[in-house]
Amino acid sequence: MSFNVPKSDKKRVVIVGGGFGGLQVANRLKHSDFQVVLIDRNNYHQFPPLIYQVASAGLEPSSISFPFRKIYQRRKNFFFRMATVRSIFPEQRILQTSIGKISYNYLIFAAGTTTNFFGNKDVEEEAIPMKNVSEAMGLRNALLENFERALTCASEQERQELLNVVIVGGGATGVEVAGALAEMKNYILPKDYPDMDSSLMQIYLIEAGNRLLAAMNPKNSSHAEQYLREMGVNVMLNKMVTGYENHRVQLKDGSSIATRTFIWVSGVAAQPVGNLGTEFLGRGGRIKVDEYNRVTGLDGVFAIGDQCLMTADEDYPNGHPQLAQVAIQQGRLLAKNLQRLEKNKELKAFHYRNLGAMATVGRNRAIAEFSKIRMHGFVAWLMWLFVHLRSILGVRNKIIVLFNWIWNYVSYSQSLRMIVYARKAKEVQEREKRLSSQHWGKDLLSEGAD
Amino acid sequence: MSFNVPKSDKKRVVIVGGGFGGLQVANRLKHSDFQVVLIDRNNYHQFPPLIYQVASAGLEPSSISFPFRKIYQRRKNFFFRMATVRSIFPEQRILQTSIGKISYNYLIFAAGTTTNFFGNKDVEEEAIPMKNVSEAMGLRNALLENFERALTCASEQERQELLNVVIVGGGATGVEVAGALAEMKNYILPKDYPDMDSSLMQIYLIEAGNRLLAAMNPKNSSHAEQYLREMGVNVMLNKMVTGYENHRVQLKDGSSIATRTFIWVSGVAAQPVGNLGTEFLGRGGRIKVDEYNRVTGLDGVFAIGDQCLMTADEDYPNGHPQLAQVAIQQGRLLAKNLQRLEKNKELKAFHYRNLGAMATVGRNRAIAEFSKIRMHGFVAWLMWLFVHLRSILGVRNKIIVLFNWIWNYVSYSQSLRMIVYARKAKEVQEREKRLSSQHWGKDLLSEGAD
Repeated sequence: MSFNVPKSDKKRVVIVGGGFGGLQVANRLKHSDFQVVLIDRNNYHQFPPLIYQVASAGLEPSSISFPFRKIYQRRKNFFFRMATVRSIFPEQRILQTSIGKISYNYLIFAAGTTTNFFGNKDVEEEAIPMKNVSEAMGLRNALLENFERALTCASEQERQELLNVVIVGGGATGVEVAGALAEMKNYILPKDYPDMDSSLMQIYLIEAGNRLLAAMNPKNSSHAEQYLREMGVNVMLNKMVTGYENHRVQLKDGSSIATRTFIWVSGVAAQPVGNLGTEFLGRGGRIKVDEYNRVTGLDGVFAIGDQCLMTADEDYPNGHPQLAQVAIQQGRLLAKNLQRLEKNKELKAFHYRNLGAMATVGRNRAIAEFSKIRMHGFVAWLMWLFVHLRSILGVRNKIIVLFNWIWNYVSYSQSLRMIVYARKAKEVQEREKRLSSQHWGKDLLSEGAD
Repeated sequence: MSFNVPKSDKKRVVIVGGGFGGLQVANRLKHSDFQVVLIDRNNYHQFPPLIYQVASAGLEPSSISFPFRKIYQRRKNFFFRMATVRSIFPEQRILQTSIGKISYNYLIFAAGTTTNFFGNKDVEEEAIPMKNVSEAMGLRNALLENFERALTCASEQERQELLNVVIVGGGATGVEVAGALAEMKNYILPKDYPDMDSSLMQIYLIEAGNRLLAAMNPKNSSHAEQYLREMGVNVMLNKMVTGYENHRVQLKDGSSIATRTFIWVSGVAAQPVGNLGTEFLGRGGRIKVDEYNRVTGLDGVFAIGDQCLMTADEDYPNGHPQLAQVAIQQGRLLAKNLQRLEKNKELKAFHYRNLGAMATVGRNRAIAEFSKIRMHGFVAWLMWLFVHLRSILGVRNKIIVLFNWIWNYVSYSQSLRMIVYARKAKEVQEREKRLSSQHWGKDLLSEGAD
């Protein structure tokens, strides 16, 4: 088995998930004496804060992703494996994955979250989530396809369903994607579809709470709401979505909104670990950890970032917000603590240092808040650009993202409006057949064909 | 039906296919008095000469594609519709498409070709074609996935199947993709997979004829062959592929080659038009046209480019080669002839002006020939770069392609090695389950898990 890693006398650290937290641990163990094994379901790291720009055709997936193998070229005692986790056998210190089992000395869960549909099967079946670049590409394709179909569909009702967009969830992702789609409606649709009345496209942003961006200051929430309303987004607060039927989003108050572009960014749940019992889990399925990110009751097992719940940090008795910075800081500390463990030194407890939060709402406008400073408008937007560009992995990606941003800004246009599927022509034909069957015999341009 | 195009007193030209030929007609009819309707199965124009670089992770689909709606923003009397052709009713001058029927005064078939599997169902089912960016993305994903799986697969035989690549067809596409994959093997694999013996990856280029690039000068054929051999490609001439079974490509001589990456670029057939009888078709399913690109026997119907067969051009009694330049020149002339028709002027006959042909074989090396000049090596490679960069549509795309080329050239690395599907997490999970089932229980890194 020459391709497999030889057994080593080094202790093995297995990291599940190469997001912000997992990557931080792997990076910081570079000069350690561990053998490091990184497992991820994808072969690349992705940058979630910009996923909404992939969905709105402003950036390519590759611009905000980075192959793990490229990050860790030339790294000694490091192994990447593309796999998903099935279950854990803590007595034997063995992890079962989709490609086999692996033993560990230290195991770190850093797999983040997945979309939470709150048990609503209708919604899960039909809604488009936006947690990763694959889903964002799926959303982009659906959106562009619906525009094309709206031109030639059979009835006014179908046209309205195809043009309306309903976004459920008023957090940062919901606000940002609503802003990006409003720009698409305002700047691109009139130019790209001169034969369509773009005012028919209505964007709804539905939030169950009484304000957008609940994690931020209420003043910033109302700035965000005001920006979105000015851009033409229908912001609906205090509205609960109960289901999706016949191309209509059902609300608790009995009303409904017609749409075939039903975007669900309303909540997250921690990535589940097959056989990990509920006694290990807290709110949102997050794995309970102590102040050192140790999973209570599992020797040598840790969890960091969005996937874990730490209530020992005195400023955050209900756990930390699920933000990149928490994962990064926990990953950084855990790498140090693992090395302290080996030297029988005392571990250091985690305290989150809040670096603030930001969200952008279309061109020139963002809101940002740091420990004592609160900003909105153009300066916040420039700061948003700078902070995000700085955080993207890789020089090539930084250049490409910056170029795209400048290009899109100057041209008032997201350039990447191609509907591309990675598949064989045969599968594409199947899709075409499915999409077109209901239109068969329908006139292409005018009522009669002549 | 406010979204549909109003009937007009202008005559309507319907163009099927927005490739090199169709785009040329549409562009040249800009200031004409026609209503122009462009139909394409995709919402973007693509640039086939660089599709192989999408497959080998050097370029993104978006860099060599351009949305039709963006090309024709602000254009009067122009309409784009995303659809595929079903059949034609020449008596009524009506075209039936996947989204309904449309009447025409002039109809132009410019839909190009599709992959020809020569009736071999096994091959059609299993082989990966490479005619468009979707298929190229499918190939890229398959290739990268196979590398990952090769690390942890169950047997040496499976590993060999996963690493071997078999390319069938020694034309320009086959030669260019073989060169690009050989570079991937030589420069990227050793760095990305230090725990894998990259020499196990074998690339086979199989051609039924007795030389590569049959359309070019025999001297250039042997240059191409020599370049590929130097890069480690196994060039096999005079070999016929008869089928594909149990992950093995079967050859007529009784031998076979193990592979799960079976690329088929061996031939093309003209895109079929549902009910167009065989009396209208020539070799390769191409629609027979006269020297004015008129389809014989169908009033007001034309065909141009790869989809048509013109034997009236005296230098090309067997029809023209299926090259971009033929389509471009025919499209240009046809636009003029349509306007001449309207003015009752005499039509001009088509004569192909051969501008030459080129192919590139990896870094620094290409072969090129023009009417009287034949080149190979570095200068030909520079010329290849220049000619292709110049031909790509759009300033943004030119900049992005040039940037990627420079970056990849300097870094010896194709940057875009991410496996991305445009789909929902649920579908991705299905795929993961399918891919992993055969490995279930297999050890991840070493024989035992501890």
